[in-house]
Parts: sequence; structure tokens; C-alpha cells
Amino acid sequence: MLYLIGLGLGDAKDITVKGLEVVRRCSRVYLEAYTSVLTVGKEALEEFYGRKLILADREEVEQEADNIFKDADVSDVAFLVVGDPFGATTHSDLILRATKLGIPYQVIHNASIMNAVGCCGLQLYRFGETVSIVFWTDTWRPESFFDKVKRNRANGMHTLCLLDIKVKEQSLENLIRGRKIYEPPRYMSVNQAAQQLLEIVQNHRARGEEPAITEETLCVGLARVGAEDQKIAAGTLQQMCTVSLGEPLHSLVITGGNLHPLEMEMLSLFSIPESQSTDGL
Amino acid sequence: MLYLIGLGLGDAKDITVKGLEVVRRCSRVYLEAYTSVLTVGKEALEEFYGRKLILADREEVEQEADNIFKDADVSDVAFLVVGDPFGATTHSDLILRATKLGIPYQVIHNASIMNAVGCCGLQLYRFGETVSIVFWTDTWRPESFFDKVKRNRANGMHTLCLLDIKVKEQSLENLIRGRKIYEPPRYMSVNQAAQQLLEIVQNHRARGEEPAITEETLCVGLARVGAEDQKIAAGTLQQMCTVSLGEPLHSLVITGGNLHPLEMEMLSLFSIPESQSTDGL
Repeated sequence: MLYLIGLGLGDAKDITVKGLEVVRRCSRVYLEAYTSVLTVGKEALEEFYGRKLILADREEVEQEADNIFKDADVSDVAFLVVGDPFGATTHSDLILRATKLGIPYQVIHNASIMNAVGCCGLQLYRFGETVSIVFWTDTWRPESFFDKVKRNRANGMHTLCLLDIKVKEQSLENLIRGRKIYEPPRYMSVNQAAQQLLEIVQNHRARGEEPAITEETLCVGLARVGAEDQKIAAGTLQQMCTVSLGEPLHSLVITGGNLHPLEMEMLSLFSIPESQSTDGL
Repeated sequence: MLYLIGLGLGDAKDITVKGLEVVRRCSRVYLEAYTSVLTVGKEALEEFYGRKLILADREEVEQEADNIFKDADVSDVAFLVVGDPFGATTHSDLILRATKLGIPYQVIHNASIMNAVGCCGLQLYRFGETVSIVFWTDTWRPESFFDKVKRNRANGMHTLCLLDIKVKEQSLENLIRGRKIYEPPRYMSVNQAAQQLLEIVQNHRARGEEPAITEETLCVGLARVGAEDQKIAAGTLQQMCTVSLGEPLHSLVITGGNLHPLEMEMLSLFSIPESQSTDGL
């Protein structure tokens, strides 16, 4: 049996009791670690689970899934995913390949950012399409996701923005030379995402277009959702450029306007104090 | 401290390890039981948690929250919610009231139908606004949610339909006479939801309007998501009228059209066999 097990969002104890029981009895336990991170590392998980974990990076899962499936028809193998196995990233490719090999599978769900974002008080059923904001480079500055934000807002829907993660990336030179040397991991902060968004707003204005959002649009920054030191800050997009949310992972919500009174009241619990609004400007 | 703890979707062991530790040390533990149900009852939860649970029905939470908050500033109180505390139903009203009383709170997240629905293979970020389908009566047959389905489909988005639950409802006579006698609980099935949807489609046609969906629209019925005996069936809306999914809870997804190839492939794992498509017709 192949078990796909969600780990939730915080630390080792956010696994479900059912998930933990499976992890402890499986013959091999893989940890997917390229789409998200927990606030604790692999070692803390290993200690709490009492099991060695095999790191499954992108290459492993995409190219060498055969290793994962080995003997999974006669023994139990677990594949651990931060959040839910079908949350922000879907692992349906693994399930499809297992099914073709005649290996049965079971999913053990958990919280993912897709539902835990509700902790800021915005109602989940008022969220439209989720978007991803990637790190810009000097030559690659995609803006296409902005159309989705625009469409969501036109329909009065909030937009959850998932922020880029670069884990186990090679520099161009190392890639060309075939050297398996990896850059330090990078995680986009709410500040960076807000700055890129403001550039897009300005680009729209420069082209004479009315941007879908402005510096004053109400946003919510979230950091380490589900962890002990979770931080939530509600304020304008401009404020999101300088608000201090600490360590990764960060997410950003662009509200859809016309908030429900209960949504407004919840967001007021997280509003950025006036004194902070010019920090670092 | 007030703890809001998600129980997940299946049985007693779907609580997180962190949640279980909190439940076992709290002075009082409430179980919210009017917006959803687990496949196991209160007794099974009590046995596994080793704690007595106080059922918190709608009246209790809306009118007598003071009981829940009693001494929560000096001791720990847990409020258990099937799924996630901010999933299909938000409990932000409890948090706002606690905050006003100076009671700190903490949320322990879990899977909810809002993210676990991803197990059918449809990608979560392609879901638009979630709708609720309520039981029709002879005199109350609301169709207004259908506009949201239409808007979602126009944008290529899937629609998660949450199906009505009637728990602890009084008959009109008992309500008038002030008798606290409750009707047996009722849970809408995928069959019933599909039949109501088909009536709406026919009403639109009768008014000369083009309905947003037809008998042939691809839908997904889900039952007891996260439980051992979970069932998923993909087929036309017409097939959803007769597909056999067993006990509650049921949910229905109306696809947005233009499925991603990976979505199609996943749905094919759950397609209703031809031979079943005329069952009961």
C-alpha cells in the first residue's frame, strides 16, 4: 500500500494520530521537501516519528518514482507531504503511476494553506482562483497571474497568493557544468511579493491601464500558519512592503473588497499599528 | 486559553497529535455537532480521547457561549470542530467574543472538505466560490446559488457544493408549542442534490433561458471523504441522480469544463461503469 500522508503546517505534532501510526509501521518513509517546509527540520520529524526519513526531491519523484514504488505491492510505503497531499500542490501523478502498477493507495489528509488561510477571518468560500507569485529575475518578470487577481476582485473574491520557494536550485553555471552544487534555499517574503505587485501596478499605470489593485488595497500577510509563532498582519498593499513577519513560509491574500462585517472584525484583530506603517520606508 | 481544534474528516484518529494532547489536558471539552458529522459518534471520540465531551449545539454556541468561556482565562477549554475550525463554517464569532473577554485563543488546524476535496484529482486552485444546496420544501425552493455555479463555470472554475444537514431540527408544530422534540437528523445525498439541480436546469429551459449546466455536465460525487469507506464517483449530472454512494456526508462537485489532462486522468479512476448508469432509472 502506498500511503500519501499530509503533515499539516506547523511542527512534528501536526501529523494526525492515524498518520503517525502508519508512519511508524511502514517499511520505507519518504519526505517530499521541495514544495513546502515545516518550521522544524527533517531531524525533528525523525526524532518524533522514531523513523528515518528518505528525502524525496523533485528529481526523485519525477524521474525515479520506481524507487518509491519498489515492493509497495507487498509492503507499506509512506510518502509524507507538508500540508495536505492535494493542497497547494497535487500529487496525483504519484497516484496515477501507482494505480498503473497495481499498487493500492490511501490518502491521510491534513490542513494545508488552502484551508488554514481561513484563520485570518476571511471566509474560504469567498476565495477565487489561487495564484503563485514567482521570484523575478533581471530578465524574467512575469505578470500574467495579475489577470486572475483582477478577475477574482471583479467577482468580489479574495485571492490567495502562494509565494515562491527555491529549494535545491543550481546556478546556471553549475547546471551547465553538471555540478550538483545547490544554491542556499530561498523563500519569498510578503515584503518581496508586495513590492513586485506594486511594480505591476505601476507598469499598468505607465501603459495607461487602470490597475485592478492599488497601494491602498487591503491585503493580509501570513507567516508560519499553524506554527506556534504564526503571524498575521492586515493592512494596505503599501504596508505589506515593510511589515515584519519573520521567518518563512509566507503567504499573501489580496482581499476582494466588500468584506462581510465578520471578516472586517476578524481582520481588525490583525491590523498593523499606525506607528509601524512607515517602517523601513 | 480557548483552543479551537479541527478533528479532520474521518474518525477519532484523524485528530492531530497536538490536538489530542490538548484535548487530554483541557478542563472542559466541547464538541460542535451541528455543521458536520464524523463517521463515528460522540461515544467513539470519548473513548479514544479518554475524555467526556460536552455537545455544543447551535443554541449553546450562539446564545450561551458564556458557558464555554467560563474560567477560560485561568484554565484551558477546548472546542472541537469536525474538519477545520475555519473550513466550510467559520467559527470566527467565538474568537471575536473570546478576544473581547480577554481570553487568548489558539487554533489547531486539520483537513476540511474545502481542501480534502482535492482527493478526487480536481486541482484546488481551479475551484471558484463554494455553494450550499439546501433541502427544498413544498414552498421554499431557492435557486439563487445557481448564479454562482454559472459564474464559476464561465470562468472555467469548479464548484464545490456543500449539501444540507438538518440536525436537531424541530417540526413546526413542536417549535410553536415550545416542545424540545427533535426530528431525526437528515443529510442531503448526492442523488437528491443532483435531482434538485436538474429541476433548476428544467426551470431555466421553461423560462427560455440557456442553463449553465445540463444533464451531461461532468460532476463528481464524494461520500465520507477521509473515512475508510470513502467513495468518489465521476460522471454526468444525470448519473449523479442514481449513483450509489452510501451513508453521509456527501458533497458534489460541478466541474468547470476544460479539465487539465491530469484532472481527467484522475477522474477516470472514479468513473461510473456504463452498466450502473441506468440504475434505478
